[in-house]
Order: sequence, then C-alpha cells, then structure tokens
Amino acid sequence: MSLHDDMLKMGDAAVSAARALARLTSEQKNAILEAMARELDAGRDGIKAANATDMEAGAAAGLSAAMLDRLRLDDKRIDGMIAGIRTVVDLDDPVGERLSTLTRPNGLEIRKVRVPIGVVAIIYESRPNVTADSAVLCLKTGNAVILRTGKEALRSSTAIADTMMAGGRKAGLPEHALQIVGTIDRDAIRELVQMEGRVDVAIPRGGEGLIRAVTEQARIPVIKHYKGVCHAFVDASADIDMALAIVEDAKCQRPGVCNAIEKVLVHERIAAEFLPKMAAVLSARGVQLRGDARAVSLVPTMAAATDADWHEEYLDLILTVKVVADVDAAVAHINHFGSHHSDCIVTRDAAAAQVFEQDVDSSTVYVNASTRFTDGGEFGMGAEIGISTDKLHARGPMGLVELTTYKYVIHGTGQIRG
Amino acid sequence: MSLHDDMLKMGDAAVSAARALARLTSEQKNAILEAMARELDAGRDGIKAANATDMEAGAAAGLSAAMLDRLRLDDKRIDGMIAGIRTVVDLDDPVGERLSTLTRPNGLEIRKVRVPIGVVAIIYESRPNVTADSAVLCLKTGNAVILRTGKEALRSSTAIADTMMAGGRKAGLPEHALQIVGTIDRDAIRELVQMEGRVDVAIPRGGEGLIRAVTEQARIPVIKHYKGVCHAFVDASADIDMALAIVEDAKCQRPGVCNAIEKVLVHERIAAEFLPKMAAVLSARGVQLRGDARAVSLVPTMAAATDADWHEEYLDLILTVKVVADVDAAVAHINHFGSHHSDCIVTRDAAAAQVFEQDVDSSTVYVNASTRFTDGGEFGMGAEIGISTDKLHARGPMGLVELTTYKYVIHGTGQIRG
Repeated sequence: MSLHDDMLKMGDAAVSAARALARLTSEQKNAILEAMARELDAGRDGIKAANATDMEAGAAAGLSAAMLDRLRLDDKRIDGMIAGIRTVVDLDDPVGERLSTLTRPNGLEIRKVRVPIGVVAIIYESRPNVTADSAVLCLKTGNAVILRTGKEALRSSTAIADTMMAGGRKAGLPEHALQIVGTIDRDAIRELVQMEGRVDVAIPRGGEGLIRAVTEQARIPVIKHYKGVCHAFVDASADIDMALAIVEDAKCQRPGVCNAIEKVLVHERIAAEFLPKMAAVLSARGVQLRGDARAVSLVPTMAAATDADWHEEYLDLILTVKVVADVDAAVAHINHFGSHHSDCIVTRDAAAAQVFEQDVDSSTVYVNASTRFTDGGEFGMGAEIGISTDKLHARGPMGLVELTTYKYVIHGTGQIRG
Repeated sequence: MSLHDDMLKMGDAAVSAARALARLTSEQKNAILEAMARELDAGRDGIKAANATDMEAGAAAGLSAAMLDRLRLDDKRIDGMIAGIRTVVDLDDPVGERLSTLTRPNGLEIRKVRVPIGVVAIIYESRPNVTADSAVLCLKTGNAVILRTGKEALRSSTAIADTMMAGGRKAGLPEHALQIVGTIDRDAIRELVQMEGRVDVAIPRGGEGLIRAVTEQARIPVIKHYKGVCHAFVDASADIDMALAIVEDAKCQRPGVCNAIEKVLVHERIAAEFLPKMAAVLSARGVQLRGDARAVSLVPTMAAATDADWHEEYLDLILTVKVVADVDAAVAHINHFGSHHSDCIVTRDAAAAQVFEQDVDSSTVYVNASTRFTDGGEFGMGAEIGISTDKLHARGPMGLVELTTYKYVIHGTGQIRG
C-alpha cells in the first residue's frame, strides 16, 4: 500500500473515531485519560528503553547537546507528562456548552453549542513529551488526534502513544482515536495536511521552518505558532524602577521562550536616564546588548545593531535597543518588525497606554506588566496546546476551548420558510 | 512593475488602512457607509453604463443567459445594494466588545476584546453586487478589504468600488481601506492568497472550482463556503403532514440556494406510506425524483439514482431519495455524502432527534424545521457574508461577529513573572 493510501486509511479511521469520541461524556473521557496516566506510570521502563535507543541514534547522528536534551526522557519528565494528564482531567470540559440560545419570532429555537472540531493533526519535532501533552488536550475535547513526531523521537513518541492507547483502551478509548504516523518519510506531512474532509486542522509545534513547510503544503486550516519577537516600550512617563524590573524579568527570567522580550524601545525623553541603568541591570545578568546609533551613544558598551537584529528571535540573553520619538513610533516599529505575539508598554500616561493597547496588533498587549505572562496557565486556561500567532479561530494562548468549534442545533414544530 | 510587486503594494496599503480603520468609532464607520450608499445612489448612471459594457462583452463572449442575469445591474439591484448598506449601518458594531475580564490573583486584569481581523480578501465571480455587499460588512467591522471580481464583471465591480470609495472619502474613509484588483490576470488570485503578513484571511465566494483553486494556492487562512448537499431525514415516527410540508419547502421554495435540500432519506418503516404522498406533492411542483432501488419499488415513476447522485448539489428541482434502516444509517449517510451544511430530521421521537442532532456533523442541524432557515438574516445576524462550511473560526452563517477576532489587553501595576 502506498504512503498516500496509508494516510487516507489513517484519516478515515480518525474520522470514525471522532464520531465515537464526540458521543462520550466528560466522565468517560476523564476515565480514559486517567487510565492513560496510570499506564504511562506502569509502562515507564518501556518508554525509557525506547528513548535510550533514540538517544543513542541521535548521539551517533551528531545531534547537538540541546537537541539531545529535548529528546531525553527521564523519570522526572515522565512524571511531568503524567501530572499534565491529571491536570487536564481536572479541567472543565468545554464540549456541550450552550453558547447562545435564541428563540425567533417564528418559534424556532436556535442553540449554538460547543462541539469537538473532529480530527486534529499535531506535527511536532523532537520533544517526545509533546506526544502526551497535546494528545490529552485533543482527547479531552473529544477530538481524534493524529500525531506526527520528529524522526529522531519516533521510537520514544511511539512508545508513549502506544502506552497511552493501551491504557485508554481499558477505559473505552475508541479505536484509532489516537494515532501516530509510523514512518519518518517527510511526504507523510504533506499527505496529512492535504487530507481535506478527513483532517480538520493541523497544529504544527516547532520551529519556523516546520511551520512554513506545513503552511505551504496545507489544504486544511493550520493554526500557526510562530516565533515571539516581543517588545517592551519604555514610555517617557514610565516609572523607571518598574521599567527596569519588567525588562529584567521579560528578558532574563526564561530567555529561551517565545514570550520573552527580544527588543526594548525607549522614548527619547527618558532614554538618557533609563538606558544606562538598564544596561547596568542587564549586564549583571549576562545580557549582551545591541543598539541603534542613539542607544549606543548613550551606552557606549553596546554593540551596534544590524538590520537583521530587529526581526530576530534570539531565545537567548541578547537584547536589542532602539530609541524612538514617541508611542506612535514604537507602535509602528512593533507592528512592522514584531511577530504579533506579546508586547508591553511601561507608562504612567493613560493616553499613551490607550494608543499602545489599541494600535499594537498583537495577540497580547500589556500595560505595565511583563510579557512573560502570555501563557495558558497564567490566563487561567489550566493547560495550553500552544500560543497562536494567527488571528483566525484562536489567537494567543490556546487551551481546551480553542480546540472546539460549534454547531447550530435548531428545534422547530414544523416551521417552513416559504 | 510586476504583478507580484503590484500586489505587495496593494497588501502594504491595506495593512496601513487597516490600522487607521481599527481606530474609527462606530459612528465614524457608519457615516462612511452612509456616504457610500448616497454616492451609489447618485452615481447609478455611471455604474449602469459600466455594466452595459460588461453585458455587451459578455454576450459577445457567449455567456449563458444565467451568467448574464447574474452580471446584470438594473436600478432594482442597485437599490438592493444601497438598502443592504443601510441595513448594515443599523447593525450593532461588534468591535470593542469585552468578551471576558479576568482578574488574576497577582492583580493582572486580563481583558479579551473583540477587534477587527485586519485585511480581508474577497474573491468572487460574476455578481457585481457582491462588491458592495461584502465590502460594507468588512468595513463595518474595521477591516480593510481587497476585492477580486470575476473578469466578466470587472468594469461593473470597479465602477461600484470606485463610487463607494468616492463616497467614503467624503466621510473620512482611510485611503486604500477598500481596493479592487484591477487586472483580470488569474495569477493575481495566487499572489493575493500567498500574502502572509499582509492579508489575514481570504473568503472565496463562488463555485466549488474557485474555492478549490483558492484553497490549493493559499498560504493564508481561507474560510470556505462550499456547496450545500442538504438532507431531510423522515423518521419512522414523523408527522407525515409536517414531513411533507418541510420537504416541499426545503426543496421547492428556492431550489437554487445552498440551504435547499437535495436528498431525502426515509425510515423504512414509514417509506411505503410517506414516499407515494411525497411523490405526489413534489411532482405537482415539477420536481424530478430519483431513488435507490427500495424507493423506486415504492414509487415506480422515480428514475433510478446513480452513484453520483448522492454527492451532487443540483440547485434545481431534482431530488434523490433513499430508504434507510434507522436514524444511525441516516446519520452515517449524511456524514459521508453530505457537505456538512444543513440537515434536518422530522420525528416525534426525542431519542432519535437526540442521536441526529448529536451525530450529524453539520454546521446546522434541524429537528422538525426546514433547512431553508440557515441564513444570517434568519439567525438574527442582520446580514451575512456567506455560510461557512468550515469548522475553524466561523461555522454556518457568517455575519459581522465572524469578521472579527480578539486580542488580550492586560493591565498591571508592574507585575513580573519571576
């Protein structure tokens, strides 16, 4: 059987499974997830053995230390997956929620009801724990899920998925509700994202290259989680101490994540006072600073920024700084160079805050707080499948609700139009 | 300048316009729309002249009578466009609505606020009135719009768009908030739907061929409005008179629209009683009936259905009939052969209704009412840009709300994560 036929078969099986999943109660779905958590606990030795084989092959293939670290599964990470599943069990199930009810003059009752999306494809890279984290969110919301893992993690991810399926089956998981693509053939991704009518949405989780490849090939909707080129704008009226604390936190608290800031824009009226203080704080934290000509003139130890710096997501202790004329210039810079993820203004001027929050075209805009709060947990979602940089369907942190859609259910007593 | 550069320039201009539009109040937007309506009224002779040229060229090119009818603009249709604009003026503006407010334990206030999507591309065919109908919905919701009309309607659509822009400018329409692609080059569609970062969503309005072409080329989200292969299922417990009335209405009241039914499924226990009565009613309305073997055995005047019939959207007085074993068989048939648009059950059995409304995977599912109510107006939306057969972002009738997205605006007092 060809890859194409294999994938179609997988898609058909997922569609059938989605219908069965949609009928399950929240209690049934939770029992399935709990059974999966137990099976992961019981089956951790098999998972670690599969991971050891992936790690050996990865080391032999010359994967970087960072890649190998992402690939590694130890008891702590397995415990994390299990705890993550139990967190999701405890969350409210959004499926079945009545979003609105409208009774029309003709007596028709129009209910808008939250339902599962159907079949979700998750395409990820070398972190095997994404297997569990993303599958449980899909299953909790009654979606069938097809997983496509990075080739270096195939054995580990397959072991996790198989273990989850084995556990789930004991509690009534519909057959094929959770499937993992078993080949490392890259064409499988194309097949997956061209299965209109079988796969309802693809969510790539990984680097920009993966997301672009998926988007270019897809004929189904893709929810993109692009990079975070996040900014802090320090307005002329900023409380300097607050600005220093926010910039330090947003840059240094966890520099490798998408909601860390990569750029600071400073109002020209406060730059001479703020920038040397900021440089002192950040240098002490090991941050390498780059700046435009005006910033460098105020902090001569800064390197000169290049054009590429304004677009770049460092995910590292590097920060590029620009002096701007006013809030409008800051907004224009952020909208042009940013990634529409998370941006903040530090200000005591309500008018400047208003301009910033209105005009910055990002999923999350902060006034006087660190960008590091853009996170499903911090937003009270309990768990997230990612942070969408798209505007359609889901924007910003994507939790359970964002893995659902709705349908209209209309009850009548024989109403006709004509 | 190349087509590619032309289109990028158009995209950049739209992005700038979108920022300006997002700042307008509802009153300002309404004033712009009203000015457009007045200008269309004043400029109707120019529009009719442009349309006459399109009609002559169309007739010379051998367009069908139906195509020419869609292309034709007379005073009545221009009045319709103007009235449509004023209907939209009277609708509530969803932009700015606070969707939720959450105060976190750390004091952060997280507001989820409805905002425009940004730049919307509408790709349509030969109905020039779509120009006005779709543009005003986009502009009312603060979106910049790029229109791409069918080549046979280019002069008419351009005249309408130019007239609207001229009117809008008098009331403060931001420059380039409404643009129309001026070339009939088909590559312009590809360019338009590959402008990631400039165009936020494409909405093709037209036949299946157009929608497929757009979807295959797109790198931006597409909201699809595919065909309506809608079903009525007459359950064993149906009130026969109600079923007859619903089937007659859903098939005959306006057979050329997407929410008309194309198929009737009948429970085997009621088929012998129902089908001859239905055949009598529908034959009197000029409906041509086709059926599976069991249906034909009950109504020998029916033609035998072919495999192709089950998928087909006739948009005509043709109906194909199948006898099914039960509600589950009806659901399976609808989910497999239907287009996930609108389907109804006629029943007096609450359990069958429950199975049907739960398991039929369509945007709108009816119990004891005609499918013809799937319509923005009938759903109380006031106006619609189409009926989405997608599940992501918008499902079913798409009105103003569905032309918006949201952003999170977070107010703090210096909160940091670490």
